Amino acid sequence: MYGTTDFRKKYEEYANIVNNALENCIATDDKPGSEIYNAMKYSLAAGGKRLRPVLALAVCDILGGNRNDILPFACAIEMIHTYSLIHDDLPAMDNDDYRRGMPSNHKVFGEAMAILAGDALLNKAYELMISHIMKKEGDLKAYVRAMNVIAGSAGAEGMIRGQTLDIGCEGCELSEDTLEYMHRCKTGALITAAVLAGACIGRAAETEYEALKEYAANIGLAFQIKDDIMDVEGSLERMGKMSGKDAASGKNTYVSVYGLDKAARLLDRSVSAAVGALGCFGGEAGFLRDLALFIKDREN
Amino acid sequence: MYGTTDFRKKYEEYANIVNNALENCIATDDKPGSEIYNAMKYSLAAGGKRLRPVLALAVCDILGGNRNDILPFACAIEMIHTYSLIHDDLPAMDNDDYRRGMPSNHKVFGEAMAILAGDALLNKAYELMISHIMKKEGDLKAYVRAMNVIAGSAGAEGMIRGQTLDIGCEGCELSEDTLEYMHRCKTGALITAAVLAGACIGRAAETEYEALKEYAANIGLAFQIKDDIMDVEGSLERMGKMSGKDAASGKNTYVSVYGLDKAARLLDRSVSAAVGALGCFGGEAGFLRDLALFIKDREN
Repeated sequence: MYGTTDFRKKYEEYANIVNNALENCIATDDKPGSEIYNAMKYSLAAGGKRLRPVLALAVCDILGGNRNDILPFACAIEMIHTYSLIHDDLPAMDNDDYRRGMPSNHKVFGEAMAILAGDALLNKAYELMISHIMKKEGDLKAYVRAMNVIAGSAGAEGMIRGQTLDIGCEGCELSEDTLEYMHRCKTGALITAAVLAGACIGRAAETEYEALKEYAANIGLAFQIKDDIMDVEGSLERMGKMSGKDAASGKNTYVSVYGLDKAARLLDRSVSAAVGALGCFGGEAGFLRDLALFIKDREN
Repeated sequence: MYGTTDFRKKYEEYANIVNNALENCIATDDKPGSEIYNAMKYSLAAGGKRLRPVLALAVCDILGGNRNDILPFACAIEMIHTYSLIHDDLPAMDNDDYRRGMPSNHKVFGEAMAILAGDALLNKAYELMISHIMKKEGDLKAYVRAMNVIAGSAGAEGMIRGQTLDIGCEGCELSEDTLEYMHRCKTGALITAAVLAGACIGRAAETEYEALKEYAANIGLAFQIKDDIMDVEGSLERMGKMSGKDAASGKNTYVSVYGLDKAARLLDRSVSAAVGALGCFGGEAGFLRDLALFIKDREN
């Protein structure tokens, strides 16, 4: 089904649900200082593929979970992803003037506001999840569990650890193990959290939960390798020459550590492993299988 | 009782409980990138009065709540307070090289790490609260409610709104209303959250909750006015001359807007209002009354 209208339609349907929810989940008021909302909304609206929240929704759907119940968690994950990009782009970090073809947050709103907008998005992610739980009656455990997975993946043992390694390792050679650990933290943790939040809210059985964890780890890896390959292929096209190491930034990538051919084989292997992990779901998991293939074959 | 050994002993007892808990609530591991913990622990250990967590513990105690149940929330509030100071000190924000007589976080660990350490502390605050709730059985509502109060006070409608106003208003004249709104957000919100988290975990009745909210709003105000007065008195001593406006920074303070005398009267009035709000608690609330007086009479 991959590449067919069906997959793309479904993906777009999920992404639209997320985009609509994101537009509405940051309140605006007319009190002093409300310009913080402009800075938050600017980066949140700048979009991208919405891969993480789409994954959360899809997993919850496959398990027969309630879509309104997963949506706040899906949006929270996208907010966390967005705040990390705003802070990553700051002059003291990666110093990127552009993000997805648009001026980065601090180029539009200034550095101080970009720092605060990032902080506010991270905090808003939790506000969103908590206020959803506040409305619930009865057993709250599944919601708290989803939030626990997300919190753990976003912090100093997850995404922020990856960012710490990323800024600490520029210009130095990383071992294969450390490279994988860095990316498992930086990109993989939040992708895994998206899948597992869907599993928690969809009340996955333990075997299903473990299978989805395996799936998530492998698509997270595939996503990062594919990104690195596209970066190099893009550079090759622009420069007309081969550059094993990402010459512009001195960053460690799968291509700089493994070379292009081996990176492509690793990509294939992780996509196969992701698809293989879905065995217990049968036909229900068609969308997740196609998504793994999409990650490999996407062009941006 | 204020100023007596009893009050000071009790305060110190609470502060020690908090300090011990804070020391243990950030794990260390030997995986790559664990230097993030050093940056987090540096600012968290740099201490200060621990006013917010002491308040949370004291309120919970007065209501007969479980101390182990409030402690993670008290520590989370201190982590949120600490992260906000790290980000506030950054060159793009207030550009402060020192905090409590020690080099600020970015002077020791660099700007990139200070940004990440702040992010990690904010996230860790939620991790701490959520993992505590994960261990609980039965009705989780009071815990979620405490976390909800904290989350709301820390974000774009609370502390971050205050910071936004603070950076946006440097050098411009603020109205009395906007000044109060700014400080109610920047300092008041988290102090109020500390008191109300204690109220949630201590299962306060509705009238008690409202009384504590009134108390918190007034000590928050008192705390900020006293800070502003001490700043000016410190500057006067150093410069040997009067400066209505905080000349060094161009910041708006209670003294710059109201003048020293009126600021002192406002301070008195808020401390009286705070003490007055505690009526329904009788003798039980002696520590909270003394704390309001301590805020007014403290020398640092």
